[in-house]
Amino acid sequence: MNKAVGPFDVYHETIAQLAGNGIILLAGNPPNPMTIGWGTLGEIWHMPIFTVLVRPTRHTFGLMEQAKDFTVCVLSDRHKKHLALCGTKSGRDMDKIKVCGFTLAKSTHILTPYIAESIIHYECRIVHKHRLDPASLDPAIDTKYYQAKDWHMVYYGEILGTFVDCEIAR
Amino acid sequence: MNKAVGPFDVYHETIAQLAGNGIILLAGNPPNPMTIGWGTLGEIWHMPIFTVLVRPTRHTFGLMEQAKDFTVCVLSDRHKKHLALCGTKSGRDMDKIKVCGFTLAKSTHILTPYIAESIIHYECRIVHKHRLDPASLDPAIDTKYYQAKDWHMVYYGEILGTFVDCEIAR
Repeated sequence: MNKAVGPFDVYHETIAQLAGNGIILLAGNPPNPMTIGWGTLGEIWHMPIFTVLVRPTRHTFGLMEQAKDFTVCVLSDRHKKHLALCGTKSGRDMDKIKVCGFTLAKSTHILTPYIAESIIHYECRIVHKHRLDPASLDPAIDTKYYQAKDWHMVYYGEILGTFVDCEIAR
Repeated sequence: MNKAVGPFDVYHETIAQLAGNGIILLAGNPPNPMTIGWGTLGEIWHMPIFTVLVRPTRHTFGLMEQAKDFTVCVLSDRHKKHLALCGTKSGRDMDKIKVCGFTLAKSTHILTPYIAESIIHYECRIVHKHRLDPASLDPAIDTKYYQAKDWHMVYYGEILGTFVDCEIAR
């Protein structure tokens, strides 16, 4: 059972998992989960915004380029192995939803579903995207993360809903 | 007296003011305060990041283009009038620090000072910037906010320090 909360009410829980084992970006039809460790939340254009970063080499990039929306699914540490798998294996090679045994559930505001096993999920509509510009990126960051010149696309999602799972045990 | 806290420890207090009366972006030498209502906080490149948005028509834009760092200063509602002034008047026409009676204090990690009257302040080093791309912006947002084609520059600041004022009464 899910409870709708304010867009930023579970920021700390979300950032803790983001910087920890990662959280799931789910996009595409059929939906493909990719683990992300980078993102920001805040207010732009008087809208709550969740930004997520995707390298153009990822399967999820092609899906996001076609997508109108996405979900961000926060899973507990019980899913550590699944988070590792969704961050290292490609949806080109396997059905990651099936391999992880995730259940997809219908979202309230968007077409992309969410992972029912999530403790938190965000439903987001894409309102902007831009590619990181190496010309204005700290050279140390460029050297460390972009040897392959695969600068991230940053997707700006308007948060239409933030939901918390009421069952703590998941 | 300031206390160093974790980069996102006072996220809720910061976002509440951001979406309320606004918070101060301080940059330049001499430093110029501009009230902002839009921004995001999160984790990118394994760094805590504060993104702030500045229109190229603003005096602060020229300052940010030359700057290596900036502070974000969160003021209490007692400074509502000052926040309104710093959001509507330009540093081209007046010394807003002087007009508001703000005290500048030396930062711990960067050259830009902070406003001593702040209840929270962030010290940030600019690591990336990019201009919003109208070609990939929701047309409704473009129409509503960018009739003058003055699309914001988004500055990504690595949060080197987050500080909370220990005196609650400010």
